[in-house]
Amino acid sequence: MGNADYECPHRVEIPPSKPFLKALKSSLKETFFPDDPFKQFKNQPTSRKLVLGLQHFVPILEWAPRYTFDFFKSDLIAGITIASLAVPQGISYANLANLPPILGLYSSFVPPLVYAMLGSSKDLAVGTVAVASLLISSMLGKVVSPTENPKLYVQLALTSTFFAGAFQASLGLLRLGFVVDFLSHATIVGFMGGAATVVCLQQLKGVLGLVHFTHETDLISVMKSIFSQEHQWRWESAVLGCCFLFFLLLTRYFSKRRPAFFWINAMAPLCSVILGSILVYVTHAEKHGVQVIGHLKKGLNPPSVSELAFGSPYLTTAIKTGIITGVIGLAEGVAVGRSFAAFKNYHIDGNKEMIAFGMMNIAGSCTSCYLTAGPFSRTAVNFNAGCKTAVSNIVMATAVMFTLLFLTPLFHYTPLVVLSAIIMAAMLGIIDYEAVIHLWKVDKVDCIVCLGAFVGVVFGSVEIGLVIAVTVSMLRLLLFVARPRTFTLGNIPDSSIYRSIDQYPDANNIPGILILQIDAPIYFANANYLRERISRWIYEEEDKLKSSGETSLHYVILDLSTVGSIDTSGISMLEEVKKNVDIKGLKLVLANPRSEVIKKLEKSKFIEKIGQEWIYVTVGEAVSACNFMLHTCKPNPGEIEVNRKDDNV
Amino acid sequence: MGNADYECPHRVEIPPSKPFLKALKSSLKETFFPDDPFKQFKNQPTSRKLVLGLQHFVPILEWAPRYTFDFFKSDLIAGITIASLAVPQGISYANLANLPPILGLYSSFVPPLVYAMLGSSKDLAVGTVAVASLLISSMLGKVVSPTENPKLYVQLALTSTFFAGAFQASLGLLRLGFVVDFLSHATIVGFMGGAATVVCLQQLKGVLGLVHFTHETDLISVMKSIFSQEHQWRWESAVLGCCFLFFLLLTRYFSKRRPAFFWINAMAPLCSVILGSILVYVTHAEKHGVQVIGHLKKGLNPPSVSELAFGSPYLTTAIKTGIITGVIGLAEGVAVGRSFAAFKNYHIDGNKEMIAFGMMNIAGSCTSCYLTAGPFSRTAVNFNAGCKTAVSNIVMATAVMFTLLFLTPLFHYTPLVVLSAIIMAAMLGIIDYEAVIHLWKVDKVDCIVCLGAFVGVVFGSVEIGLVIAVTVSMLRLLLFVARPRTFTLGNIPDSSIYRSIDQYPDANNIPGILILQIDAPIYFANANYLRERISRWIYEEEDKLKSSGETSLHYVILDLSTVGSIDTSGISMLEEVKKNVDIKGLKLVLANPRSEVIKKLEKSKFIEKIGQEWIYVTVGEAVSACNFMLHTCKPNPGEIEVNRKDDNV
Repeated sequence: MGNADYECPHRVEIPPSKPFLKALKSSLKETFFPDDPFKQFKNQPTSRKLVLGLQHFVPILEWAPRYTFDFFKSDLIAGITIASLAVPQGISYANLANLPPILGLYSSFVPPLVYAMLGSSKDLAVGTVAVASLLISSMLGKVVSPTENPKLYVQLALTSTFFAGAFQASLGLLRLGFVVDFLSHATIVGFMGGAATVVCLQQLKGVLGLVHFTHETDLISVMKSIFSQEHQWRWESAVLGCCFLFFLLLTRYFSKRRPAFFWINAMAPLCSVILGSILVYVTHAEKHGVQVIGHLKKGLNPPSVSELAFGSPYLTTAIKTGIITGVIGLAEGVAVGRSFAAFKNYHIDGNKEMIAFGMMNIAGSCTSCYLTAGPFSRTAVNFNAGCKTAVSNIVMATAVMFTLLFLTPLFHYTPLVVLSAIIMAAMLGIIDYEAVIHLWKVDKVDCIVCLGAFVGVVFGSVEIGLVIAVTVSMLRLLLFVARPRTFTLGNIPDSSIYRSIDQYPDANNIPGILILQIDAPIYFANANYLRERISRWIYEEEDKLKSSGETSLHYVILDLSTVGSIDTSGISMLEEVKKNVDIKGLKLVLANPRSEVIKKLEKSKFIEKIGQEWIYVTVGEAVSACNFMLHTCKPNPGEIEVNRKDDNV
Repeated sequence: MGNADYECPHRVEIPPSKPFLKALKSSLKETFFPDDPFKQFKNQPTSRKLVLGLQHFVPILEWAPRYTFDFFKSDLIAGITIASLAVPQGISYANLANLPPILGLYSSFVPPLVYAMLGSSKDLAVGTVAVASLLISSMLGKVVSPTENPKLYVQLALTSTFFAGAFQASLGLLRLGFVVDFLSHATIVGFMGGAATVVCLQQLKGVLGLVHFTHETDLISVMKSIFSQEHQWRWESAVLGCCFLFFLLLTRYFSKRRPAFFWINAMAPLCSVILGSILVYVTHAEKHGVQVIGHLKKGLNPPSVSELAFGSPYLTTAIKTGIITGVIGLAEGVAVGRSFAAFKNYHIDGNKEMIAFGMMNIAGSCTSCYLTAGPFSRTAVNFNAGCKTAVSNIVMATAVMFTLLFLTPLFHYTPLVVLSAIIMAAMLGIIDYEAVIHLWKVDKVDCIVCLGAFVGVVFGSVEIGLVIAVTVSMLRLLLFVARPRTFTLGNIPDSSIYRSIDQYPDANNIPGILILQIDAPIYFANANYLRERISRWIYEEEDKLKSSGETSLHYVILDLSTVGSIDTSGISMLEEVKKNVDIKGLKLVLANPRSEVIKKLEKSKFIEKIGQEWIYVTVGEAVSACNFMLHTCKPNPGEIEVNRKDDNV
């Protein structure tokens, strides 16, 4: 780059500024309708638009006409498989939520039917989820005791389900689905792992046959509670629990090795329940410290609209529980739906999913169901069983209906310890330590977020873990903006490419010219930092040049390629940098300001201050111009302005 | 670009990943020590390091040895000028805070002395500020009535001052000065304007001579309070107030037009006080509804360590008040200091300033002073009066000391309405409508932030305004990351430059190739959005090509130049995009991944998936390679890999 050939530079275009309302409209559209749902409505007659609109909100209308008998065969098998999982899991999770076991069965009947109408996932199997169940018991248990006032406790659980549904549906309707995106994958991994650990710890109560147990969920309280009543441990219960847990883990291990035998894993919980029940019935173990479910009422879901306790003094707790469980249910459900959709390469509309989840929970809260979502384990079984559409959910609901109508007496002797074993087996599958190792390898900060959520949940509470994870994630975003990286650029040999010297160690410095790149939008949050940092770069460069005694610094080129936006604080910062640079007798040159930035620089008259002739389209052209001026000793590029191409002005 | 000349591309370098601890250390250094304060300590003997360290924390040691008599002459004039402003303003603002007027004088004695030792600004004039005074009266007034329990009220005010100081100092010591940066210029303009309006409204009490007045600060409550007691208005007071306000505004207008006569503006408040006092003394107006200050105790600040009410039940209110007033005092003080430093081209260390502010408030709280900061009006007068160093603060403190010792009886007859007029005149100068117009012209979002803060303060309360402004500012940052802009790039004619077609309408599309640029780091918050948006771009491009019937799409080039960072969610997103693109029979090509991004892509094995040969240093080279393959029908660039320059591998 030593020669002073001066190439005609291209002119930086300043796009005309859009009228305010138009700009606002387009930015609102990008924010709320990034997927452009109106695309298909364009140029259609009104009747067609109506049909499309209905199909948009009730997806079953869209795919039902194309439904075939072949699909049904697959869905039937998948539906029966997940029903065999849904029944024991439903009872177990209701137990975890301190709710009557029958509510778990109710919750596998109505919500899946609603989801089958409205949901856009073909693989999601609807049901109650462990983490939300735990949250309900820990949050509602703080204000109402489920043993002393069971009726009010159930009412609050239903009310919180209603609010969870209302919140989910309104997020979807208001197109605020992206709120869920702020829970990153790392957060969810850590949070779920922590919650699974906590749920496992809670199961020690059932496995050890304890009657009294702490209401806290953190590791330390639970351990204290367990080891303070060693004499109460029941070995019968513990042996039974360990055997079943071993059996369940073994079947899962086997199914994982041989995916064709997925049904062994899927059927294992039901087998455990049957085996356990028979064992208890035969040995009368219920009289020797093995607790059993007891009487389950026959019959379908009773309506529960009148149970919704909107006038209760605990309404705020119900709302808070609803919102938190609703968000967590959504985050898990949407993530699960999306990952299976990615396997089969179809698309899931987040906002539509939220409406479906919301409607199914609102409907559920009116029919004695508590919070449902899309549990990963059941969805994976559904997928492996070869489900084709949401009809598998309908099949499952029908099977559960059949159970509710005729089979509930069979569960009388089911030992609670089997339910604990089922929950523990499911939870041990959720703890995804491989993902944590992957996070550590790829992205340390993500790993810290993940571990923060885990530690928060295990040693604090579920809410604390969630707050920690969201805060750390947000701080990371804010820190990215508040402390952007800055780089010096150099010339890659035999080219006019300029790249960071950190990344390309072969890139050469240009004598007398310092090229800086700023790696973030220039906003109030980083304007002060950037001013400091830029003056430090200049100071260090001058220092280096002084000590080497080669040339002195003449030009500072700011490469704005990576600056997507600027605000008024940022413009003031640039003005101050310009002033400082001028005082040092240097020249400030800008390269590649992008449309947002150049528009604002023009409006704030910064372009006039710096001079249009000091702004270039590429770093290469800026360097050529600076070199030309350095070697011909012309202080001002205005004199060579005549050479500038004006054909596209 | 129609020809298929294939130029040898450069290889994208993957910088070696730094060891975790080293990376952590350097990023912590950038976060907390961006100004590199240790620079000067390098290669110095220990004794010199000690001196430098002392000078770092007590700047007066650094500049005092170079202090000259010429400096002193300038500082003396400036100091006396600001003292003449400090006395009436001090009394006025103490009145606004519902504190005894003498506290206002005390607060202009000790804190300026402390600041002169520790502060790094040469222009800042220390004193009480209107907004913090108003906040103290509104926040503490909610829990303790200043009329019914004046002793406790003063104790709480001193306690909150202590906490403000402790908070400020710890922010500085922990190098968390950048917290203040999150209050943007726009926020401060709106917030200050709103607060000034509210303060003016409060003065209507004094001007109209009302005895009873609302404790609320919002416009509607104040207007109701005023117009519900029209019969209580005192015309004597109102006439006096309007006359003095007119006089003060006139002198300011005159001084603004003729900067040489700055002292007219500076002396006007003192003149008003003297004039008003004489008028009342002569006419005995205090007996006709004009309220006066009354007796002021002679003597210097009494110690007040024993008054700090750490055991009070209202301690949390005091802490909250302290933190909020502390942050606002800091934000204003640091901004004022920085803007005047920029005029004289010296540097202000934000963290050092915070320590100085904190120490001066801690010292103040032990010597009967309430919260002090760096008010803009007084600093501007100091600057115009030609101050050279912080000695002007020492001169001011000495003058105030003189006043406290000998002149307090003179203020006995000073009418409160004059104090109201002084406050109103100062506040009307703070409302910066020109800045709002500028914001609207340059940046609509900043303007909305500003107006939000203003409306929040005027119609809600000072806290509400602050919360609104900070929330909107944060949302803007988050939205920038959550909804990054994406652009299609085109070739600028007769060059190998690729730029956004939005900005450069002359840029040409390359047939068969879609070039997308993503304008933000790819993080969990935007990964889902970007996946949707990219597939929409591809869909729209295919649609366009299909309708025009020219060529079909073959390559999708993602220009990652503007992607500063990526997390694991972002990598999953890229993997899904790659899968989707593959299914459509297209090829995904990456251009210019930067060091952070390429490191993580390598660690997560995404490079293996996409193939190193599909990653280029520039968009131009990627396009050349794609074009070459399109025209020679070679499906895989591996075959031309031999041409790749390997000299810098």
